[in-house]
Amino acid sequence: MTDPVELTRALVRCPSVTPEEGGALVLLEERLSAAGFACTRVDRGGISNLFARWGRAGNGPAFGFNGHTDVVPVGDEAAWTHPPFGAEEEDGWLYGRGATDMKSGVAAFVAAAIDFVTETPPEGSVVLAITGDEEADALDGTTALLDWMAENGERMDVCIVGEPTSLEQMGDMMKIGRRGSMTAHFTLRGKQGHSAYPHRAINPVSAIARLCDRLASRQLDLGTEHFDASTLALTTIDVGNAATNVIPALARCTANIRFNDEHSGESLTEWLKAEGDKVAEEFGVEVGLTVKVSGEAFLTPPGPLSELISGAVQAVTGRTPEPSTTGGTSDARFVKSHCPVVEFGLVGHRMHQVDERVRVEQIGELKAIYTRMLEEYFARA
Amino acid sequence: MTDPVELTRALVRCPSVTPEEGGALVLLEERLSAAGFACTRVDRGGISNLFARWGRAGNGPAFGFNGHTDVVPVGDEAAWTHPPFGAEEEDGWLYGRGATDMKSGVAAFVAAAIDFVTETPPEGSVVLAITGDEEADALDGTTALLDWMAENGERMDVCIVGEPTSLEQMGDMMKIGRRGSMTAHFTLRGKQGHSAYPHRAINPVSAIARLCDRLASRQLDLGTEHFDASTLALTTIDVGNAATNVIPALARCTANIRFNDEHSGESLTEWLKAEGDKVAEEFGVEVGLTVKVSGEAFLTPPGPLSELISGAVQAVTGRTPEPSTTGGTSDARFVKSHCPVVEFGLVGHRMHQVDERVRVEQIGELKAIYTRMLEEYFARA
Ligand SMILES: [Zn+2]
Ligand SMILES: [Zn+2]
Repeated sequence: MTDPVELTRALVRCPSVTPEEGGALVLLEERLSAAGFACTRVDRGGISNLFARWGRAGNGPAFGFNGHTDVVPVGDEAAWTHPPFGAEEEDGWLYGRGATDMKSGVAAFVAAAIDFVTETPPEGSVVLAITGDEEADALDGTTALLDWMAENGERMDVCIVGEPTSLEQMGDMMKIGRRGSMTAHFTLRGKQGHSAYPHRAINPVSAIARLCDRLASRQLDLGTEHFDASTLALTTIDVGNAATNVIPALARCTANIRFNDEHSGESLTEWLKAEGDKVAEEFGVEVGLTVKVSGEAFLTPPGPLSELISGAVQAVTGRTPEPSTTGGTSDARFVKSHCPVVEFGLVGHRMHQVDERVRVEQIGELKAIYTRMLEEYFARA
Repeated sequence: MTDPVELTRALVRCPSVTPEEGGALVLLEERLSAAGFACTRVDRGGISNLFARWGRAGNGPAFGFNGHTDVVPVGDEAAWTHPPFGAEEEDGWLYGRGATDMKSGVAAFVAAAIDFVTETPPEGSVVLAITGDEEADALDGTTALLDWMAENGERMDVCIVGEPTSLEQMGDMMKIGRRGSMTAHFTLRGKQGHSAYPHRAINPVSAIARLCDRLASRQLDLGTEHFDASTLALTTIDVGNAATNVIPALARCTANIRFNDEHSGESLTEWLKAEGDKVAEEFGVEVGLTVKVSGEAFLTPPGPLSELISGAVQAVTGRTPEPSTTGGTSDARFVKSHCPVVEFGLVGHRMHQVDERVRVEQIGELKAIYTRMLEEYFARA
């Protein structure tokens, strides 16, 4: 039997702050290879990732897990009750950076996968796609793994992302989707002038006020079947003109949009462009727009995969996980183009903060739930 | 005969950048005392000013001139064709900081006054109120002189401010009024939050966009009999939030208003407060407002004083000065509470810029026009 708590401890002791591998993937590769997994290091752009498969590719159904071993920086190290890479325990808590986000999740699915294939070898394959680049730009992480899989004929039929999705109690929530996220930067250029003679200038400050009021006042939608309403938040407007007798030439603003499945990065970019064109027409300013889409919305509608998860959670905890689409983005936004994907994991405590920690007993429970998913999946297949 | 060109040269050679007296007022006091003017240095807040009267106070009508000897800094000294305090002449131009704004004007009215009282001593008095604090905050300049005059039983029945008001040709314009000027600074305080959950935050950026759009869209008036329409120019909006996933707590903006005689600093402040209250109500932000009124609008409606000026200008130049209310503020905004005031002077060239200069022949013409005003005024009195 593989102990997921021991594996969590070993992983937390690897200082794998993005983009450092920190020994975490080397450790996992060692354990998985020893258990008969075919392991491939998929490295790209200075980032390490690990692809592991038990069973022959293309032989029967493939069950996948996705997770990350990289962590955010420790912040104020002196403020931690226990050393951030110490994995020390106190009162049933295991402390450390990555304790919940998400080395315990990775340890739980790795331990579940090893024991499952060892004890009851399935007719099919178990695939683990583990990345070292989720917390930063995620450009060379899960996408690098999926690109490599496509090139090498590797696939998953379903995928569980092991992020901590439970809210208050183990198993009370899973994520069947996430809103998309994008950021728009506008630059408005007018014509500088004296503030006593506004008609001789073109004031980009008036134009950006109008633009921003319109953007913020727009009701993007009223929510969809599985999603809350999309939102737009103005995060800054900046001109930086200290001279009260001068109308400046430039004004900038930024808006962050979280959008549901009624929109896409492209459809929203079209709308933003149209709003920019309107004030260009009305005020005579030149409008520059740059847009960064961090992730499209994703949704795996309630169906076989969420039922599988729900059944496994009920069997182990007696609880029914609520299918939610709240929260920020995760790597599920990349996996969704490959196969049905749902996120399920334990309760997060102080993620990205000082004294990040996990309930030790939840790590074993999580392993039990993941094991149950594997059993049910291959039993039905 | 007092040579106003020689006096302009002597004044330009005094480096009287605000708040430095630079020898300019000392020089004038010397010349005026020698001609029988009773001189008093009215110094306040580290600023020097000069009050000079010919004739007995309270004895017959009092004709006043107002002007300033302080100048703005020279800027890029290397860029000047001639040294900024050299008063050098070339092709009929006299170069120097203050050559038009307004040492030539002061020289012209001082020369006119000295020669007038010497040659044709009037039944009344001639008063000169000359300040060293016009170009900066003007807190201890003409207001200090007027305060001192009130305390000491001194007065003017009419006043000419000798600023350069001619536009293209000597005598083509006088200023019978000026718009007022004020600046408003708003600070909006909301509640910081994550941009994915705008409903948990109070976004001051949305609120300031709405406020600014309303301020800039407001038609303050359509102009009045003697004034152009009042204007409001947004000069800056600043938040300074670089984190696109954060809704900030604070946003600031500034608006500059130039207003005609339909408004006052007080009435506009009331309106600004009401607009602030509106967004406070609509968005739940706290609104801070600070207002600085640099000057109220002033108007000396066409009448005896402008007719006197018009007649003198016509007699000397053949031109009729247009009574205008355009341009920024001047010390006439203070004098207007004391007596009817109109501004009249020569053509300004490159005021506040490098290579400020004046047409030499205009200095003599200006002295002749001021002399004619004195003659006509006391002839009618
Ligand atoms: Zn994570
Ligand atoms: Zn001036």
